Amino acid sequence: MTDVLPGHLITLDPQAQAQLFTEARTANTFTDTPVSDEQLRAIFDLVKYPPTAMNVQPLRILFVRPGDGRDRLLTHVAEGNRAKTATAPVVAVLAADTDFHEHLDTVFPIRPGMREHFAADPATRDGMARFNAGLQVGYFLLAVRAAGLAAGPMGGFDATGVDNEFFTGTAWKSLLLVNIGHPGPDAWHPRLPRLDYDTVVRHA
Amino acid sequence: MTDVLPGHLITLDPQAQAQLFTEARTANTFTDTPVSDEQLRAIFDLVKYPPTAMNVQPLRILFVRPGDGRDRLLTHVAEGNRAKTATAPVVAVLAADTDFHEHLDTVFPIRPGMREHFAADPATRDGMARFNAGLQVGYFLLAVRAAGLAAGPMGGFDATGVDNEFFTGTAWKSLLLVNIGHPGPDAWHPRLPRLDYDTVVRHA
Repeated sequence: MTDVLPGHLITLDPQAQAQLFTEARTANTFTDTPVSDEQLRAIFDLVKYPPTAMNVQPLRILFVRPGDGRDRLLTHVAEGNRAKTATAPVVAVLAADTDFHEHLDTVFPIRPGMREHFAADPATRDGMARFNAGLQVGYFLLAVRAAGLAAGPMGGFDATGVDNEFFTGTAWKSLLLVNIGHPGPDAWHPRLPRLDYDTVVRHA
Repeated sequence: MTDVLPGHLITLDPQAQAQLFTEARTANTFTDTPVSDEQLRAIFDLVKYPPTAMNVQPLRILFVRPGDGRDRLLTHVAEGNRAKTATAPVVAVLAADTDFHEHLDTVFPIRPGMREHFAADPATRDGMARFNAGLQVGYFLLAVRAAGLAAGPMGGFDATGVDNEFFTGTAWKSLLLVNIGHPGPDAWHPRLPRLDYDTVVRHA
């Protein structure tokens, strides 16, 4: 096990540190143990809380189970990702809703008029949707781990193809695919090196 | 306390669910209880592990303590955010390094030549740096909470001004400011509404 960070520095329970951050890994194979709709709803009930700018919450999720939808999805997945994407109990297509402003009267009632403000500015909406959905993708991957499941995020797919296949009539823009399930045989590649503190961090 | 999600759905310890997801809130005031350099390093030691595409790890962090650096930072912060940013024990400037490719021989040795590939494609690098740093911003905010500290993310600042002030000679592009400390008096605004499952999630 990775060194546990001591309680005077990290107050989070050591088991939770391992489950979410230090020991969890990206899975590349999955067993056929099912993932229930209740589990997917519980993951959402964690993901919805951490913050986004102006509470815009632009993340959208399409859960794709095996069958016709999965077959259609697979046609847009890079060849090297196809076998694992075919066998995962659930694949999440994570997307950013660039029409998030339509909900602003509900989610940000403390500043009236923001819906109209953003309606007139699609370029700002696109950047804001993608960045804040990105944060929520981070929350999502850790929430899948919180459910005791392995996540397998994949950028290797045709985003425009997926949008045309599943998201016509919406402003959802797909960002990432995530295979979700219980890790199967040989699920793990060796862990790749992490950048060190002095490369990533400065002080002022 | 928010309803705890039961263990057959969410295996993460209920206390950890509350600490990271369901009960944690964005703080708007801070006490003068210090945050140590050791705590900042421990936060990094969690943030570094969750996944990024091709292990690129583009997130960069500038920790700014009170003093000259903080004064320079404050000149680029929106007026409504200035008071709280002045009093936080630590402010993190989170940035994306669009020159992440310089580390690819180290962090992604399994596919040689990617450094040269990305060196020739700055537009792809910019998008990849911003998206993957966005995921890592999500991990960072939850890791601050894992340290028992409150995070106060803020988009209201002049990113170009901050880049010119602190990041000349680098390819770091600032994305978000995060106040870090122990919550002070009246730290919390009322929680804003979250979108419901049927708005965010579809099934196929």
